[in-house]
Amino acid sequence: MIVSGSTSQALAGALARELEEPLATTSYDRFPDGELLTAAPDLDGADRAVIVASTVSSDAHLEVLQLQDAAREAGVEEVVTILPYMGYGRQDEAFETGQPVSSRAVARAISTGTDRVLTVNPHETGVCAFFEPTATAVDAAGRLAEPLPGGLTDPIFLSPDAGAIELAETVRDAYGTGETDYFEKTRHSGTEVDVSPSDVNVTDRDVVVCDDIVATGSTMSEAVGVLTDRGVGRVYVTCVHPLLVRNAYTKLARAGVEAVFGTDTIEGTSSAVSVAPALESHL
Amino acid sequence: MIVSGSTSQALAGALARELEEPLATTSYDRFPDGELLTAAPDLDGADRAVIVASTVSSDAHLEVLQLQDAAREAGVEEVVTILPYMGYGRQDEAFETGQPVSSRAVARAISTGTDRVLTVNPHETGVCAFFEPTATAVDAAGRLAEPLPGGLTDPIFLSPDAGAIELAETVRDAYGTGETDYFEKTRHSGTEVDVSPSDVNVTDRDVVVCDDIVATGSTMSEAVGVLTDRGVGRVYVTCVHPLLVRNAYTKLARAGVEAVFGTDTIEGTSSAVSVAPALESHL
Amino acid sequence: MIVSGSTSQALAGALARELEEPLATTSYDRFPDGELLTAAPDLDGADRAVIVASTVSSDAHLEVLQLQDAAREAGVEEVVTILPYMGYGRQDEAFETGQPVSSRAVARAISTGTDRVLTVNPHETGVCAFFEPTATAVDAAGRLAEPLPGGLTDPIFLSPDAGAIELAETVRDAYGTGETDYFEKTRHSGTEVDVSPSDVNVTDRDVVVCDDIVATGSTMSEAVGVLTDRGVGRVYVTCVHPLLVRNAYTKLARAGVEAVFGTDTIEGTSSAVSVAPALESHL
Amino acid sequence: MIVSGSTSQALAGALARELEEPLATTSYDRFPDGELLTAAPDLDGADRAVIVASTVSSDAHLEVLQLQDAAREAGVEEVVTILPYMGYGRQDEAFETGQPVSSRAVARAISTGTDRVLTVNPHETGVCAFFEPTATAVDAAGRLAEPLPGGLTDPIFLSPDAGAIELAETVRDAYGTGETDYFEKTRHSGTEVDVSPSDVNVTDRDVVVCDDIVATGSTMSEAVGVLTDRGVGRVYVTCVHPLLVRNAYTKLARAGVEAVFGTDTIEGTSSAVSVAPALESHL
Repeated sequence: MIVSGSTSQALAGALARELEEPLATTSYDRFPDGELLTAAPDLDGADRAVIVASTVSSDAHLEVLQLQDAAREAGVEEVVTILPYMGYGRQDEAFETGQPVSSRAVARAISTGTDRVLTVNPHETGVCAFFEPTATAVDAAGRLAEPLPGGLTDPIFLSPDAGAIELAETVRDAYGTGETDYFEKTRHSGTEVDVSPSDVNVTDRDVVVCDDIVATGSTMSEAVGVLTDRGVGRVYVTCVHPLLVRNAYTKLARAGVEAVFGTDTIEGTSSAVSVAPALESHL
Repeated sequence: MIVSGSTSQALAGALARELEEPLATTSYDRFPDGELLTAAPDLDGADRAVIVASTVSSDAHLEVLQLQDAAREAGVEEVVTILPYMGYGRQDEAFETGQPVSSRAVARAISTGTDRVLTVNPHETGVCAFFEPTATAVDAAGRLAEPLPGGLTDPIFLSPDAGAIELAETVRDAYGTGETDYFEKTRHSGTEVDVSPSDVNVTDRDVVVCDDIVATGSTMSEAVGVLTDRGVGRVYVTCVHPLLVRNAYTKLARAGVEAVFGTDTIEGTSSAVSVAPALESHL
Repeated sequence: MIVSGSTSQALAGALARELEEPLATTSYDRFPDGELLTAAPDLDGADRAVIVASTVSSDAHLEVLQLQDAAREAGVEEVVTILPYMGYGRQDEAFETGQPVSSRAVARAISTGTDRVLTVNPHETGVCAFFEPTATAVDAAGRLAEPLPGGLTDPIFLSPDAGAIELAETVRDAYGTGETDYFEKTRHSGTEVDVSPSDVNVTDRDVVVCDDIVATGSTMSEAVGVLTDRGVGRVYVTCVHPLLVRNAYTKLARAGVEAVFGTDTIEGTSSAVSVAPALESHL
Repeated sequence: MIVSGSTSQALAGALARELEEPLATTSYDRFPDGELLTAAPDLDGADRAVIVASTVSSDAHLEVLQLQDAAREAGVEEVVTILPYMGYGRQDEAFETGQPVSSRAVARAISTGTDRVLTVNPHETGVCAFFEPTATAVDAAGRLAEPLPGGLTDPIFLSPDAGAIELAETVRDAYGTGETDYFEKTRHSGTEVDVSPSDVNVTDRDVVVCDDIVATGSTMSEAVGVLTDRGVGRVYVTCVHPLLVRNAYTKLARAGVEAVFGTDTIEGTSSAVSVAPALESHL
């Protein structure tokens, strides 16, 4: 049985269809004092509950804990928790004295209510080990080729930094043709980042900038600006997790991006493709 | 110049492209005490600012007031405010003693900072008169045919109540073929609603249920359930404003809906088509 | 070292003074994507961290997990977690099929990061057993006598239901004089509750209505209304946890209550007395 | 009739007692889509509605608009709006290009639904002119002496900058004895502020630091730190608006402050005295 948190209803529906498993009834209520009441009334007798919920907010974290407990209370034998997007995944260490390792903190909490955890393209794969047992990292990058238009002109699949080059290669391979390259990013201070353009020739060529996550879009839009200055063809942005916080979308639009394609790990206007097929083989 | 509120960035981008007007830089910041600081730094010297912002939350209302004031402060001559989705549009009267006419309350506030207001398919057209001057209601229902698959089998375009029958007809006309009909809805109490099925034969026919707005999806999913009991073919849900609050998406998926298609007046996973072309002729 | 969550800063300060232990520097920040960063920079080398945080919201739950992890990361030997008010404490069972035992769900999560847990007057003492090890329930009811004016006229300490009679007795004992009694509450449905007045004569006598928690204030204000009808003297409301959600305060004021006295487990306008002295002996 | 917004229930109750006017029933509800429904059922036939609501959040702003409209809808003749704390009162100009004058934006919106506006000790008195008609600024600083302990040792009433010196003098006058002085504040950049200590001798003398508002408490705690370094006696902080956001309370406690006394313009744990008597003479 597929059980959806409020943040992942479209993905949970797609996964239920993919697996031909029933999608559970769920309700997301709130008491007058603000406390959540997340329930799944038809779990009784289910062998397995697959909870699907991106933990994009504190409320979403509490929902996961509640759905896990509801499954146990219903006598479900196996509880699988899928975090399509894992909140706090980028806080995998204490960057300054006194900070928590937030991904560890939430991983421990979530581990108390589940038999196994799956998450999609975590920003740092090391976070999987914070779960008990270790979470499975599902690679959905291959799905990102699907929404791209066919017939791109001599395309380059660019990652905005060296860390995401494999992801760019995966997208290129899935697309079937094209070069890959990456930008060199120099972080001057906490907020200032300089993107040194790569040496590849981009003039009149279509570029797909590929990353695991687009949050504020600052680095990404600066990278696109560099491309535009060099007479690039069309520019697409593709990412697994289209967080797109604050004015990210506007920044990218102004930088000249044709479209932003992401998956449904973050359900929003840029959820162009589902990660359900990538999850299916792990269930 | 097109100026986007944080809630309508994709639509604002689409409208800028449609009108070939520049999209303004905007920033959406928050002070430590929670107060918003919404700014648009490059408005100076602009003849016209077209603010695009669906007022889906209290924060979004404050953003509109701030962007309007920023435009005035920058000396912009004409301020146009587009509310793709107008919050409180369904509170067009005091349903019980002591209640406010909330749509009037917000309309008055928004009118203080703008020369004209446009809104897309308001639930009650009467709310337009609460603005000073009267707001323009833009009909974007014709856009809803676009995401529907071609070749629907002997399709029926159904509205869930008599009030939305014109909208269903508009979608049918835009699709090019099909019958129209509507469900009769009987409200037993504040929350209980009974959907009496229409008499049209739906067996093995594809149905597109059309409404202006899908909020909790309760009536809609009940209507779809009635269709499923009658051996309907495929069922699609289409609406201008895909609010889809709480477990709406899950309810519709469980009821057997193939897909939910909405516009970008509410930016989310069901924003299948943009209302930008419908707005364009009014600007 | 006393470490405060953002929701319990006054109580943590009071506890630090009571114990003559240092109050840790803490910071409560938020990333652009809404994720919290709760830190305590000067915990290094501390033998013990006493985290004080009422879990009144989902954010507050995440803060506790972060502060616990920060303490561990700093090499603190013993982590004590005080939940002055424990969120979800009233959800100690699945009241309907499919519901979680929310207090168990959060107790498990919180237990992953602490050596022991203390909580003040839980609504159901059974929730202590959900923690591992079992949490200590600290009784702070005796503190509630302190803000009451001296010289009450022939006072009665009334609990709004049989369950809180011991609490009323504790407040009476701490005040030094007076009778105790309770209202009989009949729950007709989910929301409708009838308060059958007790048979004690209240005419011209001062009444202190005592409860562990005042949330929406519905039952409490109805009880006070019954007293007023019977020609009561002054009426005070006292409770450990002054949640006072929505229009609770207005309801009580309109019912004729002189004042609402609570503790600092919920920091607000009704926090008339600190539970710090009650906690002190357990640390 | 006194009508309370959800944020000012204690003050509204105090004002109703002060004026011997009835306190209106109010309800603060929320629809599933998050929209507010603020109502006041017993306003019918009232000559005057005095709405009392500190606009501490976007929701609180919408509540004011709704209560104003409810009063008009009920046929109330005169609507008075009291903003004990006026949100956005510090944004009285565009500090950078493209910014709104946020206090003007909200003042215009609020003016659409009221006959007159009162606000307590605005940070910048110029904001009163943004209302139509000009709002009345009520000075409640004299109330701040009340919670101070009697018998302070040779007290100094210090304002943290030159701008609040009059406020310090008012508190001193109300207290009855003591010197006044102020700190010189040098702003190095947007966030860095240096407090140059005044030349007055503070050794072994009690100090009351007085300001109109304490928000993050950064300047205030730095000022207190300077005093502590100079062997001051006891230090109290007093302010009209105890916003105390983020870790403000902890910072002040760590700096050695005995207590923070504020009014009920911001209802919270530091609301030691009511501004109701100061408002009373204006109504």
